[in-house]
Amino acid sequence: MRKQALLRYQKQRQRNVLAKVGAHDFIIVLDHLKAGFNIPKIFRSAEAMGANSVHLVGIGPFDPAPAKGSFKKVPARFHDDFDSCHRELTEAGYQLFTLEPDGEQSLLNISLPQKSAFILGHEEFGISFEQSDYPDIHSISIPQFGSVESLNVSIAASVMMFEYVRQHHTETE
Amino acid sequence: MRKQALLRYQKQRQRNVLAKVGAHDFIIVLDHLKAGFNIPKIFRSAEAMGANSVHLVGIGPFDPAPAKGSFKKVPARFHDDFDSCHRELTEAGYQLFTLEPDGEQSLLNISLPQKSAFILGHEEFGISFEQSDYPDIHSISIPQFGSVESLNVSIAASVMMFEYVRQHHTETE
Repeated sequence: MRKQALLRYQKQRQRNVLAKVGAHDFIIVLDHLKAGFNIPKIFRSAEAMGANSVHLVGIGPFDPAPAKGSFKKVPARFHDDFDSCHRELTEAGYQLFTLEPDGEQSLLNISLPQKSAFILGHEEFGISFEQSDYPDIHSISIPQFGSVESLNVSIAASVMMFEYVRQHHTETE
Repeated sequence: MRKQALLRYQKQRQRNVLAKVGAHDFIIVLDHLKAGFNIPKIFRSAEAMGANSVHLVGIGPFDPAPAKGSFKKVPARFHDDFDSCHRELTEAGYQLFTLEPDGEQSLLNISLPQKSAFILGHEEFGISFEQSDYPDIHSISIPQFGSVESLNVSIAASVMMFEYVRQHHTETE
């Protein structure tokens, strides 16, 4: 990682302490994503969609430039492992969802609770935990009609955020 | 543009002649987008969402690598200018929509026709034509709750495609 990128990260992470929660209650959980473009891009969409916050699990420094300033603005919570994130969110009354190609419920016809937290796993290896260890976590899939490749993780995250906003926007304003 | 990227483009553009329309009727129009990552990324999402086709207006060679093979698979139509694209789509019975930050209708509560074509403009300069010259074209906005920056164009395009699929999927299968 380049020195300038690391300095940007440190500076924006400090400013993040003052970030305010967004207009909506949903939370994004990034579980061991690569420290590449997807993390800052998800921050950018999270800000646009009014996310409450983004929780980062096992994620070190990344270049915040593609976030276009959003890493400063969307409250970020850092966890060393998923268990601490899960505990904090369930205690706050959140229902957690993973996003998987073979998820049990389709995003086309799921009713998302007001306190929804969406977990995005590593681009290649998926989530860092065994789903069976957390029977309270449900899985969602975005239906896809192509031949092989799945949606990019930052795009899948943004589609989920939009669907949450579509369902809850009139309620939360 | 690097020689390898140009060769990939030429090879995949030739194979594109054999591409089959997707499961859904919607069409994506890329109006003078930069020949960067957004075009192939939109092809990747268009394949995943089962787009009928992608129309490219005033767009030269681009590196198809970020499309993960989708530039071969989603039928691509090339136009020199928007007028030829508009004529072809309206003759085929399509309703055209632009996506603009200040669009007249919100994607949260618009009913999208079966034959919808979504126009994405240049990342900085927007669409290449005067909207007033085409009174049949409507504009849509994705509601946003952040402070400044708008959604990335490939993310905005993917959100629109998902919303179309959500509205039409059961009808079109």
